[in-house]
Amino acid sequence: MKILIKNTKLLSMEDENITTTNIYIKADKIYKIGYLDDFAADKIIDGEGYITMPGLINAHTHVAMTLFRNYGPETDLMTWLNDYIWPLEDKLVANDVYNASKLAILEMIKSGTSAFADMYFFCEETVKAALDVGMRAQISRGLSIPDLGFEKIMENLELANKYRGNNLIDIGFGPHAIYTTDIDYLRKVSDYAQKYDLPIHIHLSETKTENDQCYEKYKMSPTKVFEKSGIFKNKTIAAHGIYLSDEDLDIIKENNVSIVHNPNSNLKLSSGFLDISRLIDKGINVCLGTDSASSNNKLSMLREIENAILVSKLFSSRPLSCYEILKMATINGACALGIDDKVGLVKEGYNADLIMIDINNINHSPTNELLSSICFSTYESDIKNVIINGSIVYENGEFLNIDEKELVNDIENSFSDLRNR
Amino acid sequence: MKILIKNTKLLSMEDENITTTNIYIKADKIYKIGYLDDFAADKIIDGEGYITMPGLINAHTHVAMTLFRNYGPETDLMTWLNDYIWPLEDKLVANDVYNASKLAILEMIKSGTSAFADMYFFCEETVKAALDVGMRAQISRGLSIPDLGFEKIMENLELANKYRGNNLIDIGFGPHAIYTTDIDYLRKVSDYAQKYDLPIHIHLSETKTENDQCYEKYKMSPTKVFEKSGIFKNKTIAAHGIYLSDEDLDIIKENNVSIVHNPNSNLKLSSGFLDISRLIDKGINVCLGTDSASSNNKLSMLREIENAILVSKLFSSRPLSCYEILKMATINGACALGIDDKVGLVKEGYNADLIMIDINNINHSPTNELLSSICFSTYESDIKNVIINGSIVYENGEFLNIDEKELVNDIENSFSDLRNR
Repeated sequence: MKILIKNTKLLSMEDENITTTNIYIKADKIYKIGYLDDFAADKIIDGEGYITMPGLINAHTHVAMTLFRNYGPETDLMTWLNDYIWPLEDKLVANDVYNASKLAILEMIKSGTSAFADMYFFCEETVKAALDVGMRAQISRGLSIPDLGFEKIMENLELANKYRGNNLIDIGFGPHAIYTTDIDYLRKVSDYAQKYDLPIHIHLSETKTENDQCYEKYKMSPTKVFEKSGIFKNKTIAAHGIYLSDEDLDIIKENNVSIVHNPNSNLKLSSGFLDISRLIDKGINVCLGTDSASSNNKLSMLREIENAILVSKLFSSRPLSCYEILKMATINGACALGIDDKVGLVKEGYNADLIMIDINNINHSPTNELLSSICFSTYESDIKNVIINGSIVYENGEFLNIDEKELVNDIENSFSDLRNR
Repeated sequence: MKILIKNTKLLSMEDENITTTNIYIKADKIYKIGYLDDFAADKIIDGEGYITMPGLINAHTHVAMTLFRNYGPETDLMTWLNDYIWPLEDKLVANDVYNASKLAILEMIKSGTSAFADMYFFCEETVKAALDVGMRAQISRGLSIPDLGFEKIMENLELANKYRGNNLIDIGFGPHAIYTTDIDYLRKVSDYAQKYDLPIHIHLSETKTENDQCYEKYKMSPTKVFEKSGIFKNKTIAAHGIYLSDEDLDIIKENNVSIVHNPNSNLKLSSGFLDISRLIDKGINVCLGTDSASSNNKLSMLREIENAILVSKLFSSRPLSCYEILKMATINGACALGIDDKVGLVKEGYNADLIMIDINNINHSPTNELLSSICFSTYESDIKNVIINGSIVYENGEFLNIDEKELVNDIENSFSDLRNR
C-alpha cells in the first residue's frame, strides 16, 4: 500500500525541529519526506492540523496484567504481589492472556504507542494478540525459579525459534528479577541467550528491599550479580533502576544496558524516585514505560511523558526538557528494543511507525511551543491515526475491524471466570 | 426541565459507596435519588455503563490565561511572569479575555469540571463567557498596587453589585498576593470585603522567595500579614500554601481559610511540593485546582486528581486515598467557594451539578475498584455528559450550540493580534 500524508507538521525526532511537509509511505517503509511529483497513492491522509511523529515505544510492560487493573487496594509492591496478584496469576489460562493482551494493545495504540517490550507468561497468546492487531513488540517469557527441567527456558526458546525473522515480533528472555531467580539460574539463562542470540528483559533495583536482600545474600548489588552471571553480555532492558549506585551505573553504561523509567508505577507503588538526569548525564540509554496496567492503572505513554517531566522539575538533579523526554519515549525506546536502525524516527528508509496528533482543537489552542504542546496539552483522544509497519491500524480514532465493546465483554467474562476458578 | 438518569452507578460523595440507582432532576435541583413511579421526564438518559458523580470543582485558576498556553520556555515562576506573561497581559483587550475564558470553560467542562474559582481582570468578560456556556463560577478581580483612586476595587465592587443573586455567578475580591500588594492596601480591601460581604481569593506562600521577601519586609509570614490586615475575616480561598509553618497552619485553620493544591502547576514551575496530608490531618479544608493553562498546560481536574495521589504516595507524610482526593475535587471545593450547601454532592435538594463518566470501555476494563478506576483509569474523553444547575451543557461528548473549531480560530486570531499589538 502507498500512503501519502499531506501537509503535516513533522517532528521526525532526528532533532527538535518541526517542519510542514509531506510524508510518502511505500509498503512498510517511509519512502520520502518532502515533495514528489509522481506518487500514485492508494490513500491520501490530510495532515493539516496534525503533528506527525514516531510512534511511542513502551519499553516495559506486562500487557496481560491489564486483567488485574484496579484490583486490590493501593499498597506497596510486595504486599500487592503476594496477597493479590500472584494468587490470581496461578489460575490464569491461555485465553485470559490473549484477551487481556489484546485489550492492552488497543489501549496502547489509542494513546499513541506503536511498539512495546513485554515480560510475562503464556507469551504466545500475547504474540498472537499483537499480530492480530498489527502491533510491534519484543516479548519475553518471565523466567523464575523453580524451573524444573528448565521448562520455562525451553518454552521461551521454542517461541524464539518459531517467530525468528517475523517483521513485527522479537522474542527475548525475561529473567524476572534478582529476588525470583538465583545466580546459577541466571548463568543458565545467559548461556542460552548467548547461544541463540536473544535479548534480555529484567527488573532491576526497583525497591530498597530488593537491594537490601540482595546485599544480604550475595554481598553485592543486583547489578553486580546480573553482570557476574553473564546476563549483560546480551542486549538488556532493565526496568526501574531506582536504587543504583555510581558503581552500578558504570556497569550499566559499560554493558549498554537500557534503563526503563516508569514514573507512574514507581509513584503509585511508592517504590521510589528515579533521578533520570543522573543517568542521562552519564550517557546511559534511558527510555520510558508504563509498567503493567495493574500498577498504573492505565497504559498511556502520554501520561508517562508528562509525569516524567513534571516530577523531574522538582525532584531531579536537573529538570528535563520536553525534547529529552520525547527522545526517551521514541528513539531511546527503539534502542532498548534493538530496533533503532528501523523505528523510533520518522526518516526515509525507516519502517513507517508513526502517529498523528490532532492539535486543531480546544486543548491545544492557541498554537505556541509545539513540543510543550505535545507533552503537556495532549489528551489521549487527540491521537487520531496510528500507522505501524506501513499499515494503518487506527484511523480517525477508530479500529477498522475490531469491536471494542465485544472485547470489553470478553474481558469481564475472563476476569469473572478467573476469580471463580 | 425534568431529567431522569436511569440505572447509573452513583458516587454521591456523601460517603465512598457506589450504588446503582435512578436520579431525578427537576428544574435546577436533584429531586429524588431512588425510584419513582410517577415522573414525566422530558429527557431520559440511560445511565448504564456510567459512573455519575458530582461535577469537579476547580478551586484555583485564571481562565483567560489559556491565551498564553505553551507560551514561553519552561522556567521558574518569577522569570516566567516577568519576561513572558506580564508584558503580554499589559496589551490584553476585553475580547481576548472573553474568547480565552470561553475556550478554557469548554476544556474544563469536557474534562468534568462544573464550577471554578477564578482570579483575573476584565472579569465581566469571564462572567459573560461562563453564563453563555452555563458554567458555575466564583470570579474575583485580581487586585494589586498601584491602584490609583482604588479604581480596581471599585470595578470589582460594581461587578459584585451587578451580579449579586445570580444563580451561577458569585463575585469575590482577589487581592493577588503578598508581593503585589501591601498591608495598607490589604486593609482597604478587607474593609470593603466586610462591608459588602464578599469572598476573597489570594495566592499564599507559593514559593520560598515569596516567603523570604515577606519576612524581610514585615518580619512575619505572608499568612500573618493577611491575618493582620483583616483579610481572613471574610471567607478566603488561598492558592498553593506550599511554604506554611505550623503557626501559619493554626491561623489558616482558625480562620477557616481553604487551601487549594495545584500539583501540576507547582511541579511544572518547580515551586515546591505541598504535603497535603499534613494540612488535612490538621482539619484544614484542602481542595484542588489546575492553576492557569499557561503553567500547566491544560485544565483537566482529572490529571490533578491523579497526580495529587501519585505524588503523595512517595513524598507526603501519609499517602492519600482516592476518596480523600475525590473529596478535595468536589465537596471541599464547594466548601472553598462557599456553596457546599448546594453543590459538591449528588443529594436530594442540592443543585444538579453532575458528570457522567463512561466506564464501559477499554481503559476501564475489567471492572474492579471503582474509586481507583475514576482516579487512575479515566481519560478526559470518558466524560460524556455534564449537567450544571439542572441544564445539560455537554451531552454525549458534544456541546449543543457551540462550534469548537470556530472558537479555536478566534483564539488563534486573538493571540496573533495580541502579539502584534
